[in-house]
Formats: sequence, C-alpha cells, structure tokens
Amino acid sequence: MNKNIKVNAAILIIGNEILSGRTQDTNTSTLATWLNSIGVKVGEVRVIPDLEKTIVDTLKFLKSSYDYVFTTGGIGPTHDEITAESVSKVFGLNYEIHKEAYKILEKYYKPGEFNEGRQKMVWMPENANLILNPTSGAPGFNIENVFCLPGVPSILKSMLGGLTNRIVGGEPILSLTISLRTVESEIANSLTKIQNDNQDVEIGSYPFFQAGKLGVSIVIRSEDQSKINICKSQILEFINNKKIEIVDR
Amino acid sequence: MNKNIKVNAAILIIGNEILSGRTQDTNTSTLATWLNSIGVKVGEVRVIPDLEKTIVDTLKFLKSSYDYVFTTGGIGPTHDEITAESVSKVFGLNYEIHKEAYKILEKYYKPGEFNEGRQKMVWMPENANLILNPTSGAPGFNIENVFCLPGVPSILKSMLGGLTNRIVGGEPILSLTISLRTVESEIANSLTKIQNDNQDVEIGSYPFFQAGKLGVSIVIRSEDQSKINICKSQILEFINNKKIEIVDR
Repeated sequence: MNKNIKVNAAILIIGNEILSGRTQDTNTSTLATWLNSIGVKVGEVRVIPDLEKTIVDTLKFLKSSYDYVFTTGGIGPTHDEITAESVSKVFGLNYEIHKEAYKILEKYYKPGEFNEGRQKMVWMPENANLILNPTSGAPGFNIENVFCLPGVPSILKSMLGGLTNRIVGGEPILSLTISLRTVESEIANSLTKIQNDNQDVEIGSYPFFQAGKLGVSIVIRSEDQSKINICKSQILEFINNKKIEIVDR
Repeated sequence: MNKNIKVNAAILIIGNEILSGRTQDTNTSTLATWLNSIGVKVGEVRVIPDLEKTIVDTLKFLKSSYDYVFTTGGIGPTHDEITAESVSKVFGLNYEIHKEAYKILEKYYKPGEFNEGRQKMVWMPENANLILNPTSGAPGFNIENVFCLPGVPSILKSMLGGLTNRIVGGEPILSLTISLRTVESEIANSLTKIQNDNQDVEIGSYPFFQAGKLGVSIVIRSEDQSKINICKSQILEFINNKKIEIVDR
C-alpha cells in the first residue's frame, strides 16, 4: 500500500435502465463503500446510455483523469451489452475470444449449454486480465486502470473480494458520524466556523427523519484520525453549549 | 407540448455523501421516471463533490449540452451547501437575498425562528424563478434551463408536481415490459435480430431473481406505440417458438 498519497477513482454506470428510472442503481454505493475501505476516494460518478460513442469518449476522459475507473453493466450475453467492445476501442485492442474465459465458462455450464449467446461473454479486449465471478461464472475484466464489472448488484458484490489486492490504495479514508436531535439551521453557523478552522477535513451535515423525529448527522471525513478527533471535540463543545441531544442511529 | 421533437435532460447530483457510499441516491430514479412521463429523456447523470469549481465547470458543460439540467443537493442552510452560489457564477449573476423567498420563509417559521442559518437558504442567483416547496418551506430555484432541487428525497418528490407545467417535453417515452422465465443467453440471438430490424426502438434485457427463480425482463421503449407493438409481436413469436413461459412481475 502506498501511504500518504491520495488515490482516486471514477465510477461509470453503463445502462439505459438506470437513465429511464426503471432500475434503481445500488452499485455506486457498494463500490464507493468498498473503495473507501481500501483508501480510494470516488471523485465522480457518471451514468451513461448503452451507446458506443458515448462509452468510448467518456472512458477515454475518465481513465486519464482518475487513478482507477470502475464500470458496471454491459458485459452480459445480449445485443445491448457493448462494454467489452467499447473498451477494446478505447485502448486500440482487438476484440476477440479470451481463451481463459472460454475455458472457465465451458467448464461452468453443463455440456451443450455453452451456447452462442453465452459465448458472447468471453469476447473481450485482447490480453484482458480476468476478474473472477464466484456467483455466475462469467468473468469481468481489467485493462490498465479500467475495471469492468457486471451490472447485477449481487454478482458485482461477489467479485470485489477477489479484486482488493489488485487495487493500490492510499491511506484509508476514515469517518466519524455524530447524530443529533436538531435541525441543520441550528448548527449551521457553528459548523461553518469549524470547517473554516479545519480546511483539510471534510465535514458534511445530513438531515434525517427517524421514528417521526427530525435529526441531523454530522459526518467528519479525513485520512488522519487525529484531525477527525480535533473536529469532534470542537463539535462536542458547541453541542454541549447549545444543549443539543446526541442520538443513536 | 411540442410533439415529435426529442427533449433531453441531464441530472447532476451534488454531494459528497453519495460519492462516499454513505447515502444511497434515489433522486435519479425519481427524477428520471417523472421526466420520462412528461416526454423528457435523461441522457446522462453525474454525481460530483461539493466543490465550487467542479460544480461550475460541470454545470456550464451540461446546460449547453442538454435541453434541461436538474441539480439535486447543496441548497440547505449549512456551510457545505454551495449550489446556489455556484449557479450564480455559472450565469454571471449576483448571489443575493431573494425577496420572495425571504417572505416565504419568514412566514413559514415561527417568530424568532428565521435565524441566520435558515436565512442562508434565501440567498440565490438574482431574479431566480422559485420552485415552491410544499414540504419544508425553503424553495428551489430555476435560471434558464437549470432547475435546482434539494437533496432530501421526500422534499424533492413533493416539489415536482409544481414544476411539471414549466417543462416543455416532447412525445412521452412509452415502454412495454415482457418478463420471461428464461435466461438472457437463451434469447440473446433472437433479440439481436429484432433490435437490428427495429433500429429506432430501444430494446433492453434485464435479468432478475424472483422467488428463487431466474428470469429476464425485456423492455421495449419508443415514442411510437405502433413501433413498440411491431417489436412485441416479433418477440412473442420467438417466445412461442422456443416455448418460453411469460411471467407476471
């Protein structure tokens, strides 16, 4: 692990079903939580349609702007899955049958079941590094700093464990949450002052409703626990002065 | 309503809490579903951090690339809410107290409760058009083709009804879903052929798990019901030939 450097990533969600509102994306939250835990901060997420030019242009930009890019979606067997072919174009690589992936799926399916549709899933950019799929066989793949994962949330989740040692993160991003029985406007000025005094710590405030009551969670984020602790004590001080109740969440 | 023209929009989700994975975005799905129903197709979604330069640069690009841009988040009372100030910079407008918004919130709160934190919420680009908020008082706002909404999902939802007549959509985008007891690879080739024969209709295929069984939903989308019907009959024909069961979902 390279410590004391900041490592960032972009997430690219590929799929008309998210843009139409039909499907609720949950992969962003899964990927971001995992990436934070290994010291990679997500700088940007984009959701784009299943259009080759859009995928190619967006990926070219993101791969040169971020340390890592994670794509989800578009690697299944049907006609609307064009991520692998698009990634081949991004890197100027042949789009071809990946021998190792072919062997994996040939073994995964019963004899005679590895049909033409399924065989589409082993077409990848040449020499792609596979990302193994313990749930449903068909691997994802990685070229340079781009990692291509499936769109089905349960399958994506199952593939992250095997990927962790291939990502070089920086310091893990630590966070501390303090939840309060108050509203944002009661604490806004005090928080502004603390943020101004602690510029390299990220302080967010998020209203919530719980059991019919309003509350606010303050989230302090930094790679440095001691900086979080300084903010925490400053926050606890004004909470105490204002007699605001701390609540469990 | 202008019929027979395509109207598109981008959604810009502003908030570190989505990028950190802490909060699951649901506003994209809410906005996209509503926009589709009024004939606006979402072409792109971006999630970006609470950083002024990023917000300004991204908004400048999106507002000139799409008919409409909808932002969520960053219009509350705390220090990390910088959407209104950023939008002022995008349009070269003064960032100032909006008199009408001030009156609304002065009336909304009990005497003495319209404190400095809450007053931050009436700072907006000069001459902004307000978007009324029936849930919690503080309005969103609109400048040209950019509409700024809050991040809290229940509040955002409550504000869309009042906005519908301010968006000029094209033909509503119609969709038809056929759910099947099959797997994608069984239908991939047939679907590819139908998509090739019907280029201006969008056909997607989405695997699902329901009651422990696998299935696939085929979604046909177009502004033209007759084109959807043509695809539907072609799909039903191959389903029938392959003896694939249609299921309710």
